Amino acid sequence: MNLDIISIGDELLIGQTLNTNAFWISKELNKIGFTIRQQITIADTETAILTALETALSKSDVVIFTGGLGPTSDDLTMPALNKYFGGSLMRDDKVYQHIKKMITSRGFEMNRNNQNQALVPDNCRVIYNANGTAPGLWFEKEGKVVIAMPGVPYEMKAMVTDEVIPKLKEQFDLPEIINQMVYTQGMPESMLAERIFDWENNLPETIKLAYLPSPGRVKLCLSSTGTDRGKLQHNINVEIEKLAQLIPQYIYSADNEDIATVVGELLRKNKLTLATAESCTGGYIAHLITRIAGSSDYYKGSVIAYSNEVKINELSVNADDIDKYGAVSEQVVQQMAVGVKNKMNTDYAIAISGIAGPTGGTDQKPVGTVWIALATPKGTVAKKHVFGKQRDVNIERAAITALGVLRKELG
Amino acid sequence: MNLDIISIGDELLIGQTLNTNAFWISKELNKIGFTIRQQITIADTETAILTALETALSKSDVVIFTGGLGPTSDDLTMPALNKYFGGSLMRDDKVYQHIKKMITSRGFEMNRNNQNQALVPDNCRVIYNANGTAPGLWFEKEGKVVIAMPGVPYEMKAMVTDEVIPKLKEQFDLPEIINQMVYTQGMPESMLAERIFDWENNLPETIKLAYLPSPGRVKLCLSSTGTDRGKLQHNINVEIEKLAQLIPQYIYSADNEDIATVVGELLRKNKLTLATAESCTGGYIAHLITRIAGSSDYYKGSVIAYSNEVKINELSVNADDIDKYGAVSEQVVQQMAVGVKNKMNTDYAIAISGIAGPTGGTDQKPVGTVWIALATPKGTVAKKHVFGKQRDVNIERAAITALGVLRKELG
Repeated sequence: MNLDIISIGDELLIGQTLNTNAFWISKELNKIGFTIRQQITIADTETAILTALETALSKSDVVIFTGGLGPTSDDLTMPALNKYFGGSLMRDDKVYQHIKKMITSRGFEMNRNNQNQALVPDNCRVIYNANGTAPGLWFEKEGKVVIAMPGVPYEMKAMVTDEVIPKLKEQFDLPEIINQMVYTQGMPESMLAERIFDWENNLPETIKLAYLPSPGRVKLCLSSTGTDRGKLQHNINVEIEKLAQLIPQYIYSADNEDIATVVGELLRKNKLTLATAESCTGGYIAHLITRIAGSSDYYKGSVIAYSNEVKINELSVNADDIDKYGAVSEQVVQQMAVGVKNKMNTDYAIAISGIAGPTGGTDQKPVGTVWIALATPKGTVAKKHVFGKQRDVNIERAAITALGVLRKELG
Repeated sequence: MNLDIISIGDELLIGQTLNTNAFWISKELNKIGFTIRQQITIADTETAILTALETALSKSDVVIFTGGLGPTSDDLTMPALNKYFGGSLMRDDKVYQHIKKMITSRGFEMNRNNQNQALVPDNCRVIYNANGTAPGLWFEKEGKVVIAMPGVPYEMKAMVTDEVIPKLKEQFDLPEIINQMVYTQGMPESMLAERIFDWENNLPETIKLAYLPSPGRVKLCLSSTGTDRGKLQHNINVEIEKLAQLIPQYIYSADNEDIATVVGELLRKNKLTLATAESCTGGYIAHLITRIAGSSDYYKGSVIAYSNEVKINELSVNADDIDKYGAVSEQVVQQMAVGVKNKMNTDYAIAISGIAGPTGGTDQKPVGTVWIALATPKGTVAKKHVFGKQRDVNIERAAITALGVLRKELG
């Protein structure tokens, strides 16, 4: 069952807004059995909208639009779809009351824009938008479904979860699709491919493999489609078992989970606690850990020591060692780890100090130099890494690598 | 001059990987004068690649592919393009030496996959990949250009910046395009649209306006295309000046900058320093601040107090007050702000304590309840906010709102 996603908005085409909607919709709709044929992003014009709709309808069973449903003049999706499906606009009373409640609860009065948002085509079904004022639209034509939702991510997500997915499941007989991720760390993609060459060649035809490299990791994605979910999962598990024999030291998870989740589960399972002390990553590790619901069970907190003063006063780093070895050094990063572990009274602590760039590098310590320390109940270890020149990549790699060090220690 | 972006990879279509490449390329290529006609994401198959290429070439002058150029079996972009352009593969010696150097410097030996990566079509120009092993390809046909690059973001970005943009500028006579963002905070989109209705209607025809709502903000994008950059910018500035008269209290920046950058510049300009104390945002504010190069000039650090113990011991929050009022309360958030300000000896401090969700809410303090405090040289203020139900949105809104409070205080 094919599905096309059409994202509308000039802000996407000028690179002002990152298209997280197509990503999220693909994940959720693939999970329930749709094959996403393509994602396309087009401009806010009637011609572009109608051309994309016609192509999509000729190839796919379901077409999902996001964007261009707001209350302002640049929102053209509703008039374009209304024209295509030949309906007329009428006021939906339930939508009207909902908009009124939302606007007045924020201390504003209904205006013309708000009133217009309650006008919907009379030949579509309204998708309720609990978190916003723009209603969603559900059209049908010759057994195919066309859905339009606003582009604001949290509004759209609730609509997909609460209304779109249940209705699509009811309407279509969907296959089972499994995409199982295996996370690896420590080997470049080309080497990994060589090491698992025979395994890959002997994969059953029903299982498709993809290599997904990213800073510090290569993910392997095993995909399979069929009718019996248990059997699909079993076949994939058999292959992952073989893979785990081949490269045990490089695999860190065979589930659909990122490394912060894996580390979190290990800590929770063993009733252990963690604190962090971050310099160059500036809170990014803490963010990766705390964006997971329930992380307060094992994560106590962090000291982000962006200045040397904070390293000395809050983490008990020896000021003389900063002078002697520099803030980016084995001595300092070890003291940061021990300092935060003692202060927050945890079992483990991660500390990072490095030069994220783009400036601040020297011949001895070029941009990308990062010291990572792990304080454990048994002692403290530290290792130097030299990443690249780009600030954002260095922050990402340092954080992922540090979590990887903790995972190895725990796992 | 139109440009199409084609992203290749099943990982994008199953929602495993967020397509940051199309976003980034759009921004950079739009900046130098290309109109991005569309972004499309397709599967890793020869048919999908060739169909997308033909459509794109019929509508646009430049087509940029990313993805599918790696060393593994699922990388089909090069064979597909080689077939389309009818070349043969030959070994590029410069590419070969570069791959060899990269692989051996990581302590590995060249394998067959690496050697194959040095094979490129003989009818294309090679785009040098300083940060990876997969070379980029530059084909030309009837005055049109087709470019293929690997999908790993930091490899692709360096290639675009160092090679693609200079060559495209040389080859095409590009217009000037300006997309100027005006950031607003504090008014819903529909109200904003009403307030600026006359202004919008009286915009010159050469200026296009888009409304871009996101949690806590509405961005206005003013776009204009022409030949004289100075004149375009002047016309836009005139309109922004009028807008600033209309809604002075809601605009926080008329430049292409996010709020962490705006706050950072205000701090730097006034030689002021900042610390943060975060509970429910768990390091996200610190991350927004420290991902900006040079933020160490004004940002000293943070205490991420995820547990009450850390709030008490590190931020000198009164334990009795936590018992009496709860960790998410005016009293506690004020003490957190004052605590971190004193500890880190800064001019300003932001503190946040809230219930990000999905669990932890009560009738009195539902999920989404967030207290934000700002400690200043003149005293401390705190305000309660009630955001929504979604953890990630609550973290984002709380962080942006807190930075907004500081901006108002500084600006």
